[in-house]
This record gives sequence, structure tokens and C-alpha cells, in this order.
Amino acid sequence: MIYPPLPNIPWQERPTTCSDIIWRYDSNPVIPRDLIPSSNSIFNSAVVPFQGKFAGVFRCDNKKREMNLHRGFSEDGIKWNLDNDPIEWDCTDPEIGRYQYRYDPRVVWLEDRYYVTWCNGYHGPTIGIGFTFDFNKFTFLENALLPFNRNGVLFPRKIDGRYFMLSRPSDNGHTPFGDIYLSQSPDLIHWGQHRFVMGVKGGWQSTKIGAGPIPIETSEGWLLFYHGVLTSCNGFVYSFGAALLDLEQPWKVIHRGGPYLLSPQTYYECVGDVPNVAFPCTALYDQPSGRIAIYYGGADTVTALAFAKLDEVLEFVKTTSES
Amino acid sequence: MIYPPLPNIPWQERPTTCSDIIWRYDSNPVIPRDLIPSSNSIFNSAVVPFQGKFAGVFRCDNKKREMNLHRGFSEDGIKWNLDNDPIEWDCTDPEIGRYQYRYDPRVVWLEDRYYVTWCNGYHGPTIGIGFTFDFNKFTFLENALLPFNRNGVLFPRKIDGRYFMLSRPSDNGHTPFGDIYLSQSPDLIHWGQHRFVMGVKGGWQSTKIGAGPIPIETSEGWLLFYHGVLTSCNGFVYSFGAALLDLEQPWKVIHRGGPYLLSPQTYYECVGDVPNVAFPCTALYDQPSGRIAIYYGGADTVTALAFAKLDEVLEFVKTTSES
Amino acid sequence: MIYPPLPNIPWQERPTTCSDIIWRYDSNPVIPRDLIPSSNSIFNSAVVPFQGKFAGVFRCDNKKREMNLHRGFSEDGIKWNLDNDPIEWDCTDPEIGRYQYRYDPRVVWLEDRYYVTWCNGYHGPTIGIGFTFDFNKFTFLENALLPFNRNGVLFPRKIDGRYFMLSRPSDNGHTPFGDIYLSQSPDLIHWGQHRFVMGVKGGWQSTKIGAGPIPIETSEGWLLFYHGVLTSCNGFVYSFGAALLDLEQPWKVIHRGGPYLLSPQTYYECVGDVPNVAFPCTALYDQPSGRIAIYYGGADTVTALAFAKLDEVLEFVKTTSES
Amino acid sequence: MIYPPLPNIPWQERPTTCSDIIWRYDSNPVIPRDLIPSSNSIFNSAVVPFQGKFAGVFRCDNKKREMNLHRGFSEDGIKWNLDNDPIEWDCTDPEIGRYQYRYDPRVVWLEDRYYVTWCNGYHGPTIGIGFTFDFNKFTFLENALLPFNRNGVLFPRKIDGRYFMLSRPSDNGHTPFGDIYLSQSPDLIHWGQHRFVMGVKGGWQSTKIGAGPIPIETSEGWLLFYHGVLTSCNGFVYSFGAALLDLEQPWKVIHRGGPYLLSPQTYYECVGDVPNVAFPCTALYDQPSGRIAIYYGGADTVTALAFAKLDEVLEFVKTTSES
Amino acid sequence: MIYPPLPNIPWQERPTTCSDIIWRYDSNPVIPRDLIPSSNSIFNSAVVPFQGKFAGVFRCDNKKREMNLHRGFSEDGIKWNLDNDPIEWDCTDPEIGRYQYRYDPRVVWLEDRYYVTWCNGYHGPTIGIGFTFDFNKFTFLENALLPFNRNGVLFPRKIDGRYFMLSRPSDNGHTPFGDIYLSQSPDLIHWGQHRFVMGVKGGWQSTKIGAGPIPIETSEGWLLFYHGVLTSCNGFVYSFGAALLDLEQPWKVIHRGGPYLLSPQTYYECVGDVPNVAFPCTALYDQPSGRIAIYYGGADTVTALAFAKLDEVLEFVKTTSES
Amino acid sequence: MIYPPLPNIPWQERPTTCSDIIWRYDSNPVIPRDLIPSSNSIFNSAVVPFQGKFAGVFRCDNKKREMNLHRGFSEDGIKWNLDNDPIEWDCTDPEIGRYQYRYDPRVVWLEDRYYVTWCNGYHGPTIGIGFTFDFNKFTFLENALLPFNRNGVLFPRKIDGRYFMLSRPSDNGHTPFGDIYLSQSPDLIHWGQHRFVMGVKGGWQSTKIGAGPIPIETSEGWLLFYHGVLTSCNGFVYSFGAALLDLEQPWKVIHRGGPYLLSPQTYYECVGDVPNVAFPCTALYDQPSGRIAIYYGGADTVTALAFAKLDEVLEFVKTTSES
Repeated sequence: MIYPPLPNIPWQERPTTCSDIIWRYDSNPVIPRDLIPSSNSIFNSAVVPFQGKFAGVFRCDNKKREMNLHRGFSEDGIKWNLDNDPIEWDCTDPEIGRYQYRYDPRVVWLEDRYYVTWCNGYHGPTIGIGFTFDFNKFTFLENALLPFNRNGVLFPRKIDGRYFMLSRPSDNGHTPFGDIYLSQSPDLIHWGQHRFVMGVKGGWQSTKIGAGPIPIETSEGWLLFYHGVLTSCNGFVYSFGAALLDLEQPWKVIHRGGPYLLSPQTYYECVGDVPNVAFPCTALYDQPSGRIAIYYGGADTVTALAFAKLDEVLEFVKTTSES
Repeated sequence: MIYPPLPNIPWQERPTTCSDIIWRYDSNPVIPRDLIPSSNSIFNSAVVPFQGKFAGVFRCDNKKREMNLHRGFSEDGIKWNLDNDPIEWDCTDPEIGRYQYRYDPRVVWLEDRYYVTWCNGYHGPTIGIGFTFDFNKFTFLENALLPFNRNGVLFPRKIDGRYFMLSRPSDNGHTPFGDIYLSQSPDLIHWGQHRFVMGVKGGWQSTKIGAGPIPIETSEGWLLFYHGVLTSCNGFVYSFGAALLDLEQPWKVIHRGGPYLLSPQTYYECVGDVPNVAFPCTALYDQPSGRIAIYYGGADTVTALAFAKLDEVLEFVKTTSES
Repeated sequence: MIYPPLPNIPWQERPTTCSDIIWRYDSNPVIPRDLIPSSNSIFNSAVVPFQGKFAGVFRCDNKKREMNLHRGFSEDGIKWNLDNDPIEWDCTDPEIGRYQYRYDPRVVWLEDRYYVTWCNGYHGPTIGIGFTFDFNKFTFLENALLPFNRNGVLFPRKIDGRYFMLSRPSDNGHTPFGDIYLSQSPDLIHWGQHRFVMGVKGGWQSTKIGAGPIPIETSEGWLLFYHGVLTSCNGFVYSFGAALLDLEQPWKVIHRGGPYLLSPQTYYECVGDVPNVAFPCTALYDQPSGRIAIYYGGADTVTALAFAKLDEVLEFVKTTSES
Repeated sequence: MIYPPLPNIPWQERPTTCSDIIWRYDSNPVIPRDLIPSSNSIFNSAVVPFQGKFAGVFRCDNKKREMNLHRGFSEDGIKWNLDNDPIEWDCTDPEIGRYQYRYDPRVVWLEDRYYVTWCNGYHGPTIGIGFTFDFNKFTFLENALLPFNRNGVLFPRKIDGRYFMLSRPSDNGHTPFGDIYLSQSPDLIHWGQHRFVMGVKGGWQSTKIGAGPIPIETSEGWLLFYHGVLTSCNGFVYSFGAALLDLEQPWKVIHRGGPYLLSPQTYYECVGDVPNVAFPCTALYDQPSGRIAIYYGGADTVTALAFAKLDEVLEFVKTTSES
Repeated sequence: MIYPPLPNIPWQERPTTCSDIIWRYDSNPVIPRDLIPSSNSIFNSAVVPFQGKFAGVFRCDNKKREMNLHRGFSEDGIKWNLDNDPIEWDCTDPEIGRYQYRYDPRVVWLEDRYYVTWCNGYHGPTIGIGFTFDFNKFTFLENALLPFNRNGVLFPRKIDGRYFMLSRPSDNGHTPFGDIYLSQSPDLIHWGQHRFVMGVKGGWQSTKIGAGPIPIETSEGWLLFYHGVLTSCNGFVYSFGAALLDLEQPWKVIHRGGPYLLSPQTYYECVGDVPNVAFPCTALYDQPSGRIAIYYGGADTVTALAFAKLDEVLEFVKTTSES
Repeated sequence: MIYPPLPNIPWQERPTTCSDIIWRYDSNPVIPRDLIPSSNSIFNSAVVPFQGKFAGVFRCDNKKREMNLHRGFSEDGIKWNLDNDPIEWDCTDPEIGRYQYRYDPRVVWLEDRYYVTWCNGYHGPTIGIGFTFDFNKFTFLENALLPFNRNGVLFPRKIDGRYFMLSRPSDNGHTPFGDIYLSQSPDLIHWGQHRFVMGVKGGWQSTKIGAGPIPIETSEGWLLFYHGVLTSCNGFVYSFGAALLDLEQPWKVIHRGGPYLLSPQTYYECVGDVPNVAFPCTALYDQPSGRIAIYYGGADTVTALAFAKLDEVLEFVKTTSES
């Protein structure tokens, strides 16, 4: 898969004092909790290149603490304008179109349009799928899966003629378990041939895991950033790491990095509505330079940015992988 | 839908002292826990008419307390011969074909063969679908849905060109919640257009509910027997009742009977591996006479039989329905 | 306090093989679960002498498993006729008069009428108070206390010009804790001067306790039968014992019997909707003979009867009391 | 009700950059955790105008983490002097006078004296009522209600000849549920005619709610500030909002503001002994200017101050109210 | 190890209709719950050959539901006389000698005397060790291990100069987990060199396991009967099975039988204070005939007896063992 | 016991504005979370005087969040060099030598060498014991106790010919309970004569407690610093205080200070991987000056330092002790 170049990808070089694979933007958070008047918090949001600039679908919790999706645009991927009102989704069937809650979106360019997936409330959390051609009109397609599911992430192209989606089935609450599965579809409506991809391991990813940004295709496999959760003796800690999935049978894990790549350590990751959360939903990628810009939520309150280089991440995943 | 006559349906008339809509077979349980040498218990099992007699797929827990499916045949639906070894399922993909656990089967004649659905262990409980033409060779198709799901029940015919299945998504344990949903499929492999059917209510069905036998088509709607669970101050009680679903849009509930039809009150329903359980998985139906014979598990230990008449059940559902 | 003689109190002499303080009626249960067509179970019910015979308010759970109160009459206290429909309560204020649920009644003759207390659903379980002069017309007064409360039991006379009521505040579920308190009132509407009476102890009464029948006045104090709950390694066990409360300051415990008086040991106490429950709500008392007849619920399913003699119970309470 | 003018109410104008209904004092916290040598923390405290200045009853947890009430005085409502030792309460009945724990006080001028209500330990948390004429001698009256209760808040005048009190019955632990009820009394000792006022809703007030400061009488109803709690995927968040109650029947909610008015967002609200808590106990009100000064606890550690104007709050409650 | 012949071992031949490895005594229970006046229940008890007859230490819960140990004698191992009062233990150190609770004893002849181990309350459940030479005087030695532990079972001889004991460390409640460990001692006072023996597996032994009777030495290893617990969707089920441990390094499991040998299926195993429990504490063994008589608790209420033959049990363990 | 003088103990005088018994180092934390490349966090670590300087065993969690022990050296006890790789332990028995996890070390000079105890993973957390003569070669001895145990702390000399160790038995998770016990040993391998030392009390130490640094011998008893945990309405708070144990029978508590000595109040104690933790593992002591330097973990993330004087601590413990 040839990725269009993204020369204006947000970017800072790694500080010379830093030897980490992923490093933070020095003016984080890029989106404060109160960027728009209605918002309590803005985090776990999805960004894509759009018409030479950037567009996105943003999780904004309002001051009732209702969770919804808002549209935003940016010249540089750092300074954002967001609509104060949530996206309205066209939907012909009111049974499924009714708003209950919507959160944690991902956006992907797939064939001819931008598809959005998110955690959609329909008698429980499940994976809603919608699309837009222009970030102006948004259409709701269907709930891809039954409740109770979260972190639905589409692959950016068909594989062997079928659409693929990762998800994290779990339960109806603030669940203390969850592994990553993959489902396949001929039409983005009906899904089957479900396969287990990977489960929790010890340490930072011992409680639950979930796919993060849209996987990036590389010659060595699909690069998947994913979050993992550890239950400390006083709450959860959400970090994120990476794995490589087989190109043709992406439910097969080729390599899985041992350590986390980024864990909550700064004030804006440790203090906020949900302490100790770093939760990635977007990885912009500039193929020519190998640059990656990751948008992630901090403390379920703000949106932050971190940077990496593809070859270093791949090297990290491979060298720290335990069979 | 014309049901083939079933003149040899197991049957006893209602005792004259009884005014209940459903009454028990007077020699219950029909299948004891130790019918075969390997079994700890035989319950929550599925029966169909077969070649003028009866065949079935039976949940047998062995003495390791592994849960599996066994084949059985009967002349009269009451006296059963079961294989001592579990059914072996043909499956081309070892990833999904491996046995983890299988339980609570339903069987339905659909188009050209018998389809079996059951709760299938694949990194958690989900709905396995398989089929047999002859009760000799059994083929495993796919897991229809992602975990965590139970009580997958197919409709006995396509509706509007699609297959329909009820299920009860929930979590990975002995879950204290669960409602009934419906999913649609063009091919029995990929499922979508999921719709909420009905949820818990007060009283006997206040903790969780799940579809029981294959729905029976009537001129007034699909007759669905379903179990409901109450959490007492000392454990669960599993009873069952009935509802009527719309013929064309079966996620719409037309009537839902208020009281239970049968609750655990006999020794074999109250005492056993799981006290206080009456759990129906089969409803044989003889259209000419209106007779219904329900097979249900008692105390998760034995298989029992109860009888009803279609018109009386419909009347009950309609007159006790609360909008 | 002079109790009117009750020569027709239900009675059987203690079997010669029995040395227990309390012994069971040999034809228990006296009220089966299905005495009336609508009932799933009849238990935890209150009986009083009435016009030379007996009347009562009965907890009947119907086949929806709704909990409500029914009226009943008996010639001999053993063979009962119950109304198939629940009592309708006159109430001028619809805000509190609406039925949510009603269970576990106690009835007491107090001054000029029969007062009924029960666990009344009003945004949670609390203590409803009503009265009847004639067991024909029933009037709902008020909820005496805020939720979450159960086992409200009135004293049979004013003490020092005030009404007294025992109750067991706890939480909104099938709660694993609860002690007995006492409240005082000038008018049966407003309650205050709440005092702690007694809490859980080890063994059979280690999880929660609650007052049972109306206390019986004796020269040595108020005799209180009360239930206690033990959490075994597989559920709760409800037994009952007795204590003596100070006549003038009944929140002061004079003696508290160490062992239980009756624990669930028979089939109808061990097997039913809630296994292992013996729960007393009534103690009829014939002062001349010292006979006591206790009505108690078995397994939250049926109503049973047991007998005792006042002097033996007092002796038991005093000799087994631990300071 | 005519409120005496309070020209020296603590006050800062809303910052020009702020468009919120409620804004914080710019030198928060006004009371640090270690204002007195014995204190671990000082928060959830009650302030009243007193002799042209201010007096208050303060929750101080000492370094054993015992919870108690201390007296304090201030010239300006901002700079406080607190006694290092707790208030001693006169009480004639040692049964109820013994200290177990005391926290979260409210103070109100009612008829002829200052009444104090607080969460009082008496075999569980309940609502203690006491009074003082002069902030010198403090008398304990009674526990108004049975355990388990918290957040007892008196109305500042009788209504229809009776005293009114809001409270939040719940259970004996750090309870995950709780709604607001109202009780009525002829004498502040005996309480009855309990009415449900309002329960949890979605979002910021989805887990439990509780009354905050003494309600402020306005021509449109009683203005009630109250806290609400959301359970995030990593702990609780305590915010506060407002509602309008009927003047004559204050258990009837006329309007209930949708969003919160203030949620924990600053360091002193997010970091401390209990992260993410903003908990109001006092609202001073200057009727002529419409100014309101709210004292609230930050992170269960310090006391902070925020400001609002009555007309703006009323407008907010009305315009954001959902029927 | 040469076992003294035990020709009067309680015995019944296997019924001809039975093909199980272990079969029940046809007059079970051998000890009813009320054998002695003080007892609520008698179960989980230990029996040894004594002076040509039988003696035992019995768990008797009294009617306060206090758990204690009583002495008993029997001519034939079936008809028992038990002391109505508990054993008094000589102990020089009152700090550890105080009674809190004692239950689930095992007795073994070791070197020169009978050692008793039991679950002993000392600020939590742990393993008490005592001894008797004559079943007349009983001496308490020490608590072998720290809380929280249960099911301490000594080996009947030293191995390599050291004493060995199995135990099941767990927590302070009705714990849902627990594996079997082994500890070693030079003096029965100090224990160390702790080794993990075996943990839970699927099915009947998936929640927790614990050693049962004193292991029986055979040429193929130590034969260990042990109980296993399954968590059903409505409570626990306690069954028992067997394993073979290495003779010299008994923390090494040579074979572990797959299915249970006996699960609760009779009334006296399914109904009682704790439903669905079969819990073995003694296995008498007659080496010449190979007969084994197992005493086990039924429903934590009564004591029952079952029979087996050593060679058949060994064969079972070996043939059903999964590596 | 004569302590060798420690003139170079890290030290700062108490700030003049501070009246606390214990005061913090003004440049805390002394060890940041990322001192070595592999570390996620460094905390709960043990320091001893070594060859005129300082050596230590440090808990370092790596970026997989594996917990292990690292060696470190320091000239001044403040600026530390730590090995990037964990300590390798010599162990002849691979059954117990395998690494599962190691954390929360204590180090003590005892007789002829440095003994290290730590929480060691062996089928659950227990107390591992090892030793080193030179901080170069480290030898693993044995697990002293069965799981589930933590906070094993040796006394610095034999008492009455036996080794003594404090520990905190509990369960297998992030346990909400735990008291301090003492065990005795002739050889550091086998442990017995277990005695209860002290349990939880109200307030800051109401959930669980555990021994901290090696006890310091004084003429008035063993001075034990220990941590205590309070369960707030939003998580745990770990503080620490002190007690005096009897010199000869150290399971007897002579005095126990009422308030905590230090609770989490600074940013590095309140914010980090585990909010609100101050956890001491080392108390260096210079006998001539009476100076004490306490190393404690902050927020389970960094290592901090605090100071005290022995006489002041003793005075505090005695004067605030409640019998």
C-alpha cells in the first residue's frame, strides 16, 4: 500500500536528552479540555489528512458529561478548530439512529471515503460505523457488532476481498478484562469469521488491551499501536505499545513489543477526569520520511501529541518481542 | 409456514387438578443424569423430529465437568439412547475447530438440513453454528458472533431473504445481566443489522433473560419461549415464560406474558448441580392438534418434559401482556 | 399488660423424643405455596386472633414474582382461606400510595385497631404503616422511615406515652449486613429518638439480624424472637433465636440467647425459592397456658408453624445468655 | 423570606475571559489543609454570617484521620481562625452523645438560633442535629434519622408549620448509590412524611447525588446546589450543579439544571486525599446584589471558594432544565 | 511403609449395578447432624483405628454455629459415640491456646502418637497441630503456619528425616481460590522449604482444591484424595478425586486423575447447611484386602461413608491422568 | 545493641517553620523514576551503610512493568548509581530460583552478612530471603513462608537464640486487609511460633498495615516504622507511623503512636503510578546524634527521603499512644 506523502505532518525532532522510541510534543496538550464552550474534555480523538490540511472527529464530553463526536479542522494538525455542536448523523432507521452516547472515534480513508468507527451506545456499547466524503455530511451505516464492544478499528484496505476490523469485546461496565479480536466482512454491514488476535499479558498490559490507531501497513506486517491497562493497587494505568500483525492473515501476531512505548508520566496524563491514562487513537504517517505523529488522550481530559519514526518502532517491536 | 404433523409428539393430558398453562410430565425426569457412563449430568438439550422418530443433540457434562454435545435417538421422544462419546465436528480451520467447551444446543430444520447452534468456547463463550443432514456427519461452520454470547437461537425460515438469529450478549462469567438481541445474515456466516428485542423486567425475569426453543410461527407472530432469572436473597432462580414477536420484524415484541409459565418447584428442578433451574431448549409442535412438548433442563442436572397447547399459550401471552 | 386468653391457639405437645425448646408442627407446611391460584409462594406472614378465630395478612408472591399482601381468615389458625387478590390500601396521597412492592408484614392490636407494618417499596424498601379495624377496610398511613429499611415491628402498647418500633436499616439490595434499632413516635407518623438495640454476633447471627414477631410482654422484659443470618461458604442460612429487652427502655438488652432456637433442617425449610430459610413473623401467645405458636416462612416459599412454652423460652434465653 | 443584606460577602468579579456561571476565587484554596496544627485536612465546611462578620463549623480530619467539627471565625470570610480542638457538644444522654465521628456540617439560622446538621456516627453514619446561639456553647439535640444517611440539610424556615430537611439515605460504606429525599418534623426531633425529591441522572450525576448548602429561597422556588458523582473508568468524580424546588412542596422539582456548574479541574480539586472532588456545603447570599459565595471542599483536603450571581444561576437552571 | 492390617474396616461390596470406582454406603449418613444434643451438624471428621476399634476427632458445629472438635469412639466405624463437649487442649501458652474456632480435623498415627491437624482460628484460619497418645489427654503444640491457611494434612511418616505437611494457603473469607502446597519441618514446630504441589484445573476442580485424608503410601507413590470446587452459575460444588505424588519428593505430581471420583448427588450431599458438598477427611486402609473406607462430610451437615479398592483407584488415577 | 556510628547519614535540619516529627528532604525525590534507562519507576527500596558509604537494593519496575531488584551504590546516600540490570540470585534449586517477580526489599546486617528480604513471586507473593557479603554475589536462600505474604522484615539480631521476622499475611491480589505477625526461626529456613503483633485500627491505618524498615533497637523497645492504609471514598491512602515493641517478646506492643508521622501530601507522593502513597522501607540511624533518615517510596514511582530524631519519635510514640 502506497501512502500519500504527508510532508506537513506535525513534527518535532527527538530531544537530544531523550532515548525513548516515542517522545512527547513539548507544548502538550495540543487540545485543552475547554477548547469549545460546551466541552468538559476533548480526548481520544481521530485525525486524518484532508485536502492538504487536517480534519478530525473528536470525542468531546460536554458539561453534562455526555459523550459525543465533534468535527474539527486544522491547518497544521496542532492548532484546531472544533464545532461546538456534535456531528449529526444521517440515518434512515430511527431504531439505531437515536443518540445514546458516542465516543473514542477512529477515522480511516478506505477506498472512496472516510469511514468513522466509534463506541456507539445501542443498549450497551458497541461499534458504530459511519462515513463521510467531505467532512460535511456524515452518514450512519450500522452497528457492526452486538454489544458489548469497544475500540473498533478498521484496516485501511481490503485484504483478500474482505474488510477487516479489530475490536475488543467485553462487558457492559468499566470492565476489568478485554482482548483484541478481528472480524471480516463483505460489505461493512455483516461481520463474521471472527478470530482471536491477542490477549492480555503481564505487566503494563495485564488487565485489558485494545487496538489504537488504524494499523499502518509496512513491508513487515501491519503495525498496530494498542493500549494496555495495568491494575495497580490503587486504580488502572493506561499505557500503549505496539505489535506487528501478518499482512495477509492479520489475526496472526508476528511480533509484539515487550515494554510499553509511552506510559502516563506527565501532569496532563496523570491528573484529570481519569488519572493515569495515555490512550492513542490516531497515528499519522509520512511514508517518505518515516515520521509518525500519534494523537492520544491524556487522563481522559485533553489531547496530546507524540512522535516516532517508523523504522525505530519496527526495530523496537522486533527486538523486544517475546515469542 | 406449514409445520409437518407430528402425531407421535410426546404427550400427556393436563391433570384435572391442574389449571396451569404448562404442566409437567408425570415421570420426569425423562433423562437421568447418569444415562450414559461418562455423564455427570444431561440437560439443556435439543430435540427434533427425525425420520418419523426423534433425534437430538444433548448437553452432557462429563465427570471432569467438561461440557460437550452428544447425539441421541428416541422412538417416542421419552426413552432415549445417547452416544457415550461426544459429537465430533468436521472443521477445516483448526483455529476455530479446537474444542474448548460446547453447551446448551438448539437444533432446527432450516431449508435443507438440521442446523445446530450452541454456546461454543472460543476465547470466551460465543455462538457456534454447525449442521448435519443425517445426524451422522456433523460439520462446524463458524462462530456466528464474537464472544461473549450465549443462547443463540435460529429462526426456522428465512425472513425477507435473510437468516435471523436471537442471542444474548453478556460477559465472560456467570453473568448477572443479559437481554435478547436479534442479528441478520445473508449466509449464516456474516451477521449484522443487530436489533434489540427485549430486556429484563421486574420479578421472575429481572436479572437476565435468554431465548429458549426455536420460535414457533403462528398467525399472530413468532411464539418465543424464553427463560428469565431472578436474583433472590440467596442465589438465582431460572423460570420460563413466553412472548410473541412480529412475523416480519421479529425484533418487535407484540405481546409479552407477565407471569412465568413454569418455575422450579419440583425436587429435580430445585436440587442438583445448580439449584432452582428450569431451562427450556426445545418445543416440539404438532400443528394439527396444537400440542407442544417442551424439553427443559432441571437444576442443570437432568432433562424434563412439560406440555402445553398452542392456543392456550397464545391466549396466556396476550391476556397477561403489559404494554 | 394482660393478654386476652387464646384457648384455641394452634397447638401440639412436644414429641417425647424431642428435647428442643421449639418444636415443629407435624403437618408442616400449614400453607402451601399454591394455596391460591395467583400465588408462587406464601410465607413470612402475620396472624392475629380475630373475633374468636384468626385473621392474617399474608405475603404472597405471585407468578410474576411480584410481592404483595393478601388477607386471610382461619377457624383454627391452621387451615386458611386467603383472598386471591391483594389488599387494596386506602391512601389519600397518591405519591406514597402507589404500589411498588409490599412484603413481610407484621400485625399488632394496638389501642383500638390492628396496625400492619411491612416492607414497603418507596424508591427503595422502607417501613409502611397501615391499619384496619375489621380486616375489611385497610388504610395506609405513611412510610414511617426513610429507605432503606426492613423488618419494622411495633410494640403492642405505648411505653411512657410513646409508640415504639424496631427496625433493621440496611441498604438497597440483598444486603449482607444489618442490626436492630428502635425508634419512638408521638403519633405513628413522625419518628425519632432512634436507639441501637443489638447487632450481629458470631455464628448463626453473624451476617445480619432482624426483629421477628411483635414482642411479647413478660414480667421479665419484652420477649423478642428475631432471625439471624449466617453466611456459609455457599450462601446464607436464616435461623431464629430470642432475646429479652428492658420493659421501660426496650433498646436495652437484658438477656440474649446464645444458640438459635430453630434453624432450617427440614425439606420445606431447605428447598424452595430461597434455600435454608426459617423466618418468623408471628408469635401467638396464650397467657394462661403459656403456649406460643410461631408462624414462620420456610425457604421463602411456604408457611410453617412451630410451638413453644413461654417459661421454657425465658429460661433458655436467660441460661444461655452471654453478658 | 427576606435575607438580611450581606454587604461583606466574599467576592470577586468574574474574570473577563470566563463565561462560566460559577467562577473560582483566584487565591484558592482559602483554607489550607494544615491551617491548625492538628489537622490533616479542612474541607466540606459550613459558614454563616455572624455578628457582622463570619463564623463557621469546619470539618477537620486530624492526623489520626479522625473526622470532627471545629469552630472558626473570620473577619472577611476568607482569612480564618479555627480552634485547634474540636467542638464539644453538650448532650444529656451519653448513649447518643459519645463521639464516633462527625463530618460534613451545614449551618443555618433558623428562627432563633444556629442549627448545625452533620453526618454523625452512631452505629453507622446518620444525621446529627445540634444548635448554638452564640458559637460558644453547642448543644447536641438528637440524631434526626436512622443510619445510614448523609448530607442532611435543613431549610431556613418552617413551611406550613413544619421543619423540612433534605437527606441522602444510603448504606454503611463508600456507597455507590444515593438519591435525595425530604423529611418533615414538628419539633426537629421526630421526622416523618418522607418524600423522594430527586434521583441520579446520566453523566456527572449518574452514581449518587446529595444536597449541598442550605437552599436559598427565591421567588421562583428553593435554589438547591447539590453535588453529583460520576463513576469513571478509574474512580469517582464529584461535581456540583443546581435545581429549583417548589416553595410549598419542596419535594417537587421545578427545574433541574442539565450540566454541572463546577467540576474538579484545578490542582487543589484533582489532587489530594480524595482526587477529583468539588463538594459544596455553604452558599452565602447577599440579596441586594444577588451575589452568592460558595464554599466547597477540594479533593477532600482543602476549602475553596467560588462565586456566582443568583439571577444567572436561576437562568441557567431554567434554560438547561430537561423536563 | 507397612500398614497394620485393618480387618474390621467398615465395608460393603460395590453394588452390582454400579460401575463407579467409589461407591456409597447404603445407610448413609452414618452420623446424623444431631447425634449429640449440642450439635447443629457433624461432618468433615477424622477417624483412625484405635485399640482394635476406632476413635476419631469430629467437627461438630453447635447450635450457636460455633465450630469445634469432639472426641468419638466406635466399635465398627459406623455406629459412633461422641462426647457432647468439645475436646479441651492442654496448652502452656495462653496467647495461642485460646479458642477462637476449630474445624476440619485430620488425624494420623506418626511415630509414637496420634497427631491432629485442623483449621485453627488465630487471628484468621491457620493450621493447628496437637497430639494425643490415648484419646484421653490432648495437647496443643503450635500453629504450624501463618494465617490464612486451611486443609493442613500431615504425611504418615518422615521422609528423608523431615516431617511433611500439605496445606492450602488462601485468604480470610469463603475464598474463591486455593492450591495445594507442601512444607517441611525438622520438629513439627518450624516449617520451611515450601513447595507448590498442584493447582486448580478446569471443570470440577476449577475454583480451589485442598488435600483430603492422610496420603496413603503405595509402591507407586503417595495416593492423595483431595477435594475440588467448581463455581456453577449458582454457587459452589465440592467433589473429590485423587492424585499420586512422588514418594521421595511428594511435591511432584506423578499422576492426577481427570474426573472426580464422587460428586454431591444424593439428598444428604445436596441439601443441608451448605448445599452440594462432598468433603473427605479420612481414608481408612486395609492393606491385605486393599479396601479403603472414606469418611466425608455431606452438605457440611452430616458424615457419610464411601468405599473403594486401592488397586482400582490407582488404575483410575493412572489411566485418566493427563500429563 | 551498639549501632556503629553513621556520621555521614543523609541529613537536613528541620525547617524552622515546621513542627512535625518527621520532615521531608527539600530536594525530593532523591531518585527519579527514570534514573536508569530500563526503569519505569524506582521506589520502596532498601539502603544500608556499606564500607563507609552506602549500598542498597532497589525496587525497579521496568517498562514492561515487571518488578525486580537492582543493586545501587552511593557516596552520600542521596546521589545514587544503580545497575541497569537486575540482581542475579544464585540458587541451587531451580524450582524456587525461577524469577516470577521481586519487589519491596529490605536489607539488614545480621551477624556476618547482609540479608535481603523481599516480596517474592512463587505461585503467589511470599517472603524471599537471600544474602550477600559484598553486594557483589547474591545468594537466594529460600522462601521463608507460604504465599500469600508481603512486607517481610527481619530483626537485626537474634533474640533468645532465634531469628525473628515480621510479615503481613494476606491474599493473592491488591488486598484490602492485612495485619502484622511475627515468626521465629532457628536457621532462617524453617519458621514457626507465629504470633500476632498488631492489627488495623481506625483512621489512617484502618484498611491494612505492614512493617516498614528494619526495627531500631532502643532502650525502651524496638522502634518500628510501619505503613498504614486508609480506604477513602475514592481509593487508598498509604501513610506511615511508628510503634514500640517489647525487646524480648517483640510481638507485644508497648506503645503505638496515634497519628501518622507522614502522609502523602506532596506532588511526588500524590501523583504517579499509584496516587497517594508514602511507603518506608529503610531507616538509617546514627546512634550518637540520634538522627534517622527514612527512605520511602512516593506514589509507587520515586524514592524520597525524610528525617527525624530518635528521641522525638520515641516521645511521639509514647505520648500519643492509646492503651
